[in-house]
Amino acid sequence: MKIIVAGGDGFCGWPTALYLSKQGHDVAIIDNMIRREWDNELHSNSITPIATLEERVAKWKELTGKEIRTYEGDLNHYDFLREVLKREKPDAFAHFAEQRSAPYSMIDRSHAVFTQVNNVAGTLNVLYGIKEIVPDCHLIKLGTMGEYGLPNIPIEEGYIEIEHKGRKDVLPYPKQPGSFYHLSKVHDSHNIMFACKIWGIRATDLNQGVVYGLDTEETKMDPVLTNRLDYDGVFGTALNRFIIQSTIGHDLTVYGKGGQTRGFLNIKDTVRCIEIAAENPAEQGEFRVFNQFTEDFSVLELAELVKKVAAEEGLETAVSHIENPRVEKEEHFYQAENTKLRDLGLEPHLLTEEVVREILQTVVEHKDRVIKENVLPKVTWK
Amino acid sequence: MKIIVAGGDGFCGWPTALYLSKQGHDVAIIDNMIRREWDNELHSNSITPIATLEERVAKWKELTGKEIRTYEGDLNHYDFLREVLKREKPDAFAHFAEQRSAPYSMIDRSHAVFTQVNNVAGTLNVLYGIKEIVPDCHLIKLGTMGEYGLPNIPIEEGYIEIEHKGRKDVLPYPKQPGSFYHLSKVHDSHNIMFACKIWGIRATDLNQGVVYGLDTEETKMDPVLTNRLDYDGVFGTALNRFIIQSTIGHDLTVYGKGGQTRGFLNIKDTVRCIEIAAENPAEQGEFRVFNQFTEDFSVLELAELVKKVAAEEGLETAVSHIENPRVEKEEHFYQAENTKLRDLGLEPHLLTEEVVREILQTVVEHKDRVIKENVLPKVTWK
Repeated sequence: MKIIVAGGDGFCGWPTALYLSKQGHDVAIIDNMIRREWDNELHSNSITPIATLEERVAKWKELTGKEIRTYEGDLNHYDFLREVLKREKPDAFAHFAEQRSAPYSMIDRSHAVFTQVNNVAGTLNVLYGIKEIVPDCHLIKLGTMGEYGLPNIPIEEGYIEIEHKGRKDVLPYPKQPGSFYHLSKVHDSHNIMFACKIWGIRATDLNQGVVYGLDTEETKMDPVLTNRLDYDGVFGTALNRFIIQSTIGHDLTVYGKGGQTRGFLNIKDTVRCIEIAAENPAEQGEFRVFNQFTEDFSVLELAELVKKVAAEEGLETAVSHIENPRVEKEEHFYQAENTKLRDLGLEPHLLTEEVVREILQTVVEHKDRVIKENVLPKVTWK
Repeated sequence: MKIIVAGGDGFCGWPTALYLSKQGHDVAIIDNMIRREWDNELHSNSITPIATLEERVAKWKELTGKEIRTYEGDLNHYDFLREVLKREKPDAFAHFAEQRSAPYSMIDRSHAVFTQVNNVAGTLNVLYGIKEIVPDCHLIKLGTMGEYGLPNIPIEEGYIEIEHKGRKDVLPYPKQPGSFYHLSKVHDSHNIMFACKIWGIRATDLNQGVVYGLDTEETKMDPVLTNRLDYDGVFGTALNRFIIQSTIGHDLTVYGKGGQTRGFLNIKDTVRCIEIAAENPAEQGEFRVFNQFTEDFSVLELAELVKKVAAEEGLETAVSHIENPRVEKEEHFYQAENTKLRDLGLEPHLLTEEVVREILQTVVEHKDRVIKENVLPKVTWK
């Protein structure tokens, strides 16, 4: 299958491109390299040293004989996108190419506007590109579990049957996202649903949980293939951030009470979920939603888990509760469905102490690269 | 009360500015004059000749002694918006300043992207401006009944209580809008709800139905104050378009079966609704939604009504069903709540034959201005 991975130089996109290539798919990457620029803007870095995209795909070809074509450009440049679609004629378009950090979107007005315009207009271009050039192409779009927010009823996969005043309908699940970034994904979902309806586009929205981990079988094959790993207050996410804090003698900083519960998944499951979606495409005109996570944890549970494993590795650390930079509930009901991907064959990599230990051991090798002043959150929601 | 009317040169904004000024409020208009540019782009016009904004406010001052200050500029230029907010320190900000045509947003990719970026980023700027400069200012935002789409259950005002798997919550009403324009308003609603929650902004989202009519007491005071009236396939809306078709001997062109049912209101009620919202502001942090329409009609009912009144005026016309340029249901359930504005004092101007006759008589005076090739729809959803 011919698959484009947009955002294929990023944390999720790069291992996905490798995995799909290894599985025998014909993969091309689109990326505008902006994630690397944001490191410069924020004076931050990946704790793992990462090679350039050119070096990465050259090494992959050397090791496997498989070619991953690369297109450096921006989905917001429609002429560029059209040319790539014309040349590649993909069967599936896996779309990771968005600004994906909630804190980044909350830095200030211009970052909020940038995030929404970049993500929403980029995705509109993808929809028009598919309509115009490759109408049968399956759009696999990365959404987020954060689109749902924290309702006091169970979260379903995209839709909910509502009975009201004696009538019934199945409607899009109500959305209450918690940042301008999460809002941009909600906007995307509404736009895509509409495009499926009027143009017959086939699309799968993968409402992904928080991704942890670093390596996949493929990224481990050579240091040049290493994936990026973020730990800073802007791009770092809960579990990975705690692990890195533990290796540099930093307290594990839980925001507020730490009762915030979210869905999580291993990066190894992210790459498999994309393959499952690609191999089981949505119907023409169908806007399908899968909740892409494997387990849920509270932030405090994760901190305690990391503390325990770190101690076993000789790294003494404490859990500290810092003022929550976000406006969010710290204790709440949380129950979310996630059966559709498992029904299609996902076999989850669950979070064990061994998994934490493995990430931790990799991080320890690179701990001298941590820029300590970036670890704590500086962006607030207020 | 100090009120800014953004989009105050437009079809709804101009009569609103006059009405609020007459009621004794201190009114300032922001407008970037782009609605007049779109007439040039589309080779179209208002059937009524309209004066420049400068002439309009000068005449208003001459007739009433009341000053309406004007600021020519774009909400997407944040520095401009900040300066206006600093100078005016408004108590309320009535926000009509968006691209408001569904067909315009569906012309092509660049019009879709323009509509969403213009509307969403402009409103984000307004939210940041209020947060930064006038945190107590009440945002009165024009939404649309089209945000809800056509669910098979009754439409409530913004929120719905859902019972699911033994639990209950009151959640944002699910949205299924039918164009990239309507989608932009859904995106706005989500963004505003979030800003209210995190920053304590007070906001009222007025999900307005289709507005018909032309005159208010104020716009009738002098020809220079005349409101614009659109009839073309892009900016013209159902009832007004039928009336104009009847005056030029054109068939009344119903899209498809004509069973499409929508909420409607007279422009005289639009202006009053803004006043009601302003005088009864939302609480700090409250995102309040009112459904702003007074009656619902099917498109075919409106065509038949116009045909009857036109015949009485000596204008013989026929109702013809043309191919629907939109992708929409032509027969469907429709029941929408609209009690909140009436509970606050709205006394609707209902649609009678007399009302149609009055609009028709005004239109007849200007029928030579109609550019006939603009009457039929050219933009399709496919």
